[in-house]
Amino acid sequence: MAASLPGAGRRLLCCLFLCLLLSAAVRAATLHHEWEISYQFKSPDCVRKLAVTINGQTPGPTIRATQGDTVVVRVSNSLLTENVAIHWHGIRQIGTPWADGTEGVTQCPILPGDVFTYTFVVDRPGTYMYHAHYGMQRSAGLNGLIIVAAAPGGRDAEPFAYDGEHDVLLNDWWHNSTYEQATGLASVPIRWVGEPHSLLINGRGTFNCSAAVAGTCDATLSECAAPVFDVVPGKTYRFRIASLTSLSALNFEIEGHPMTVVEADGHYVKPFVVDSLSIYSGETYSVLIKADHQDPTRNYWLASNVVSRQPGTPTGTAVLSYLGAPRGPPPTPPPAGRAWNDTMYRFQQSVATVAHPAHVEPPPPRADRTILLLNTQNKIDGRIKWALNNVSFTLPHTPYLVAMKNGLLGAFDQRPPPETYAHQTYDIYAVQKNPNTTTSNGLYRLRFGSVVDVVLQNANMLDANKSETHPWHLHGHDFWVLGYGIGRFDPAVHPATYNLRDPVLKNTVAVHPYGWTALRFKADNPGVWAFHCHIEAHFFMGMGVVFEEGIERIAELPPEIMGCGKTKGGH
Amino acid sequence: MAASLPGAGRRLLCCLFLCLLLSAAVRAATLHHEWEISYQFKSPDCVRKLAVTINGQTPGPTIRATQGDTVVVRVSNSLLTENVAIHWHGIRQIGTPWADGTEGVTQCPILPGDVFTYTFVVDRPGTYMYHAHYGMQRSAGLNGLIIVAAAPGGRDAEPFAYDGEHDVLLNDWWHNSTYEQATGLASVPIRWVGEPHSLLINGRGTFNCSAAVAGTCDATLSECAAPVFDVVPGKTYRFRIASLTSLSALNFEIEGHPMTVVEADGHYVKPFVVDSLSIYSGETYSVLIKADHQDPTRNYWLASNVVSRQPGTPTGTAVLSYLGAPRGPPPTPPPAGRAWNDTMYRFQQSVATVAHPAHVEPPPPRADRTILLLNTQNKIDGRIKWALNNVSFTLPHTPYLVAMKNGLLGAFDQRPPPETYAHQTYDIYAVQKNPNTTTSNGLYRLRFGSVVDVVLQNANMLDANKSETHPWHLHGHDFWVLGYGIGRFDPAVHPATYNLRDPVLKNTVAVHPYGWTALRFKADNPGVWAFHCHIEAHFFMGMGVVFEEGIERIAELPPEIMGCGKTKGGH
Repeated sequence: MAASLPGAGRRLLCCLFLCLLLSAAVRAATLHHEWEISYQFKSPDCVRKLAVTINGQTPGPTIRATQGDTVVVRVSNSLLTENVAIHWHGIRQIGTPWADGTEGVTQCPILPGDVFTYTFVVDRPGTYMYHAHYGMQRSAGLNGLIIVAAAPGGRDAEPFAYDGEHDVLLNDWWHNSTYEQATGLASVPIRWVGEPHSLLINGRGTFNCSAAVAGTCDATLSECAAPVFDVVPGKTYRFRIASLTSLSALNFEIEGHPMTVVEADGHYVKPFVVDSLSIYSGETYSVLIKADHQDPTRNYWLASNVVSRQPGTPTGTAVLSYLGAPRGPPPTPPPAGRAWNDTMYRFQQSVATVAHPAHVEPPPPRADRTILLLNTQNKIDGRIKWALNNVSFTLPHTPYLVAMKNGLLGAFDQRPPPETYAHQTYDIYAVQKNPNTTTSNGLYRLRFGSVVDVVLQNANMLDANKSETHPWHLHGHDFWVLGYGIGRFDPAVHPATYNLRDPVLKNTVAVHPYGWTALRFKADNPGVWAFHCHIEAHFFMGMGVVFEEGIERIAELPPEIMGCGKTKGGH
Repeated sequence: MAASLPGAGRRLLCCLFLCLLLSAAVRAATLHHEWEISYQFKSPDCVRKLAVTINGQTPGPTIRATQGDTVVVRVSNSLLTENVAIHWHGIRQIGTPWADGTEGVTQCPILPGDVFTYTFVVDRPGTYMYHAHYGMQRSAGLNGLIIVAAAPGGRDAEPFAYDGEHDVLLNDWWHNSTYEQATGLASVPIRWVGEPHSLLINGRGTFNCSAAVAGTCDATLSECAAPVFDVVPGKTYRFRIASLTSLSALNFEIEGHPMTVVEADGHYVKPFVVDSLSIYSGETYSVLIKADHQDPTRNYWLASNVVSRQPGTPTGTAVLSYLGAPRGPPPTPPPAGRAWNDTMYRFQQSVATVAHPAHVEPPPPRADRTILLLNTQNKIDGRIKWALNNVSFTLPHTPYLVAMKNGLLGAFDQRPPPETYAHQTYDIYAVQKNPNTTTSNGLYRLRFGSVVDVVLQNANMLDANKSETHPWHLHGHDFWVLGYGIGRFDPAVHPATYNLRDPVLKNTVAVHPYGWTALRFKADNPGVWAFHCHIEAHFFMGMGVVFEEGIERIAELPPEIMGCGKTKGGH
């Protein structure tokens, strides 16, 4: 075609092509990180405890990148006797399903002394996270933020403006080790670790030293001093807020400063204002605040409080510091947050979170397949478990990705889990008469390119009058959130109420107490992907499923993900 | 040849052969064990702590076998995120060097979810042990006894008689996890865990609950009740006594009952009588006592006390219960043991331990090679280490056995460590002027069949006027203990004093404070074998070396020992 153009036109075209190439080369950087994972004594809430750290730090370093960049993280395991795997939460891993970092699903764990390199493209701007995805290791401190800026001048540029940015990573924290927590969960009777000892903001919290074991707590450590976020009066700030709690649903507020929600899980949302933000483990939000309080001569609290469970943990705090105001804590007591059982407040935020008008990605109008998942608390041999459609999930010891790609028979249960449950008769408000269940590591195989609806139905727990919020996280995809409800989902009625106009895309979504949540995604990312409650203890106790799609489209797998189970010896 | 015999002769020969076959079949049993390794909450000293258990128990089950039996232990790792490896302490693994269970030397660690089967022959009668050999995992509770009876009527029959037998496994115990201990050792400055909280006898000890963290201690648990050893007045008992302490040298006594030492590390010794037995980590002894106390109407203490370090741990106790005496603790306070710094008492026991006259195995008259090892405390980048000839040992992440057999280059340092040190000038009584050292994972390659002498020289530590006892354990062999001394070893003088007449064979031997110990072994067991201080923290900090011999004589290695480091992918 170029041959038919006159000389000047050809030169112009060449020049344009070169410019495009150059601009792509400039934009799409490759960012190298070297991480050493080790245990270190840390005092995040002033109480000394062993933590799993990255280069000696918890939280680990924030990965900052620009849309289109390639991130390369060379992970070296120095945990002595413990393995590790790191998940890049919210990164879809398109073309790199082996880099998802999910032990048992996409890779074998990384052994002590071994080095494993994660390489992936961050293709969308937004606020993401990373964390350990092996046993209950995430709770031990291996976590951090991934912040991806929009490509300059691209169509994903932010539809809002601000003068400065602050990043807030929320967490909960126990003084018990993850080994103690996990062993307690698997004990008969269950030995529950109890409510978190502290809530952390950017890895810092405050425990009351008088309640600590003698000699372990030091309230004067700078390591546990409340984080300070500086603002200049009159300016607008973007706060990126992310939660990697093990257990806690949180209510987050910035005292006296309404927040305009503008981003959720890497997607721009139709702005709406809240006094306090409900945020669940696995979620990220961006909010805008204006530093325009009528009294700019003092400081204000950032506060996180437990909701959805009766709280037993003090407020997590940080300080919003106005330029010119004296340093130090605000003069008021920290906000106590919304009532913990104010489900409707949280439900309303869920419903209010829809796509930004200029960034609507319409969902396919209908699903090819609908999977209804009833989420119940169960028992096996006296051990408490969670189950979906009466199947409690267990991870296989051979990663699905390798087992399926390489045809390793017997690596997992070949029978698919059930697609539905007795939705017409199951009483979600009652304690189950027979809570016994079975385990399986079977998975759902999805037709490549098909549209899948999943409806998660929450029910009563083993104790009467108790149902909790479960934040479900999908790997490898974003999904459209089509609807929420409180009560029994009826497939004959509720689909007609779905929001097909401007549903938000997310990777993590709340299922409210006694409620249901409907979501839709396209099975167009070849790989094997976990979908599970992001409460660490719940996934450990079986609250998860796994999807496979397009396994046949994946090229040869990197041998580095193998070495365990049936892949020992490098099959 | 049989063809030239007359018919009756042939029949007789056939019959004899059949008898031999049958008797071998009867004698040489194959003993199968199924072990699941998991974390469990245990209260060995009445304080609840997470322990690594075998089938829910710590110590694990005692393996009882008869000389010539094949022991098969199928180990299933249920530690969730932690690997494991199990060493069969004192079993030489002739023909099965891959079953020695030493992570980094003979195998890759066993991953969570994996199963590994150890198969080995117990070719000699005696008292042996097993324990984890990975990081500092042994201290977490994975340990137990192996008791091998002499083949009936064989030449290894015991040269002593007794009416009953009791087994005593000694240990020390901390409430801190092994992760805390190991991280503390690697911290700058060092965060030393401190003296043991308790001394255990058969996995039971007594901590003073008033000193424990509230809610963790329960003195009424049967789990931590003092073990009781029943005796009938007038009878003679064999006590098999084994120590797997992490740190402590022990003084063990049975109140009011002199002990006749008859076995050490699986070898019969010339009987000698002690009031209390000095026993170091990695050693086993058998003693005979007669239940002939003048007052058989009461009970007596078994007591273990820390020696060689200034003790900070209460006496470990159990009860010797005379038939007919009332149950319950003895009326006296438990014996406090010998003065902790009475080195000469311990030295004398070492020297008194020689081969039983009817079971002398004379050593080769001279060595083909002599390795002198100076044992010093050192520093690297501010971290405290131990070193031999100024090289602090580190384990490679690819097991030597696989790396050497399969020629995997770069798996470890090819330069051998030094054979000697400046023995004529080094002042063993002084603090080193420059304690800095380097690490290496180089090893000593021994000519197959050669006779090797090793002299271990103890020196002053980083603090003035301080030198400790180090029990050194050799894998894959027994060694003749040729001599001990206090002071500087002189290769021109001391070899002439060696006991070449009736030295005892052992697998673990003490090097006394400021002292030296000379030993000899024949490098005739194809494999790669660790030789190290059996104090868990000391090997972790570099106090060890490795020997290789006859690697070329080993048949194909089982692929099950591979999967880590450069053996990932099954090279």
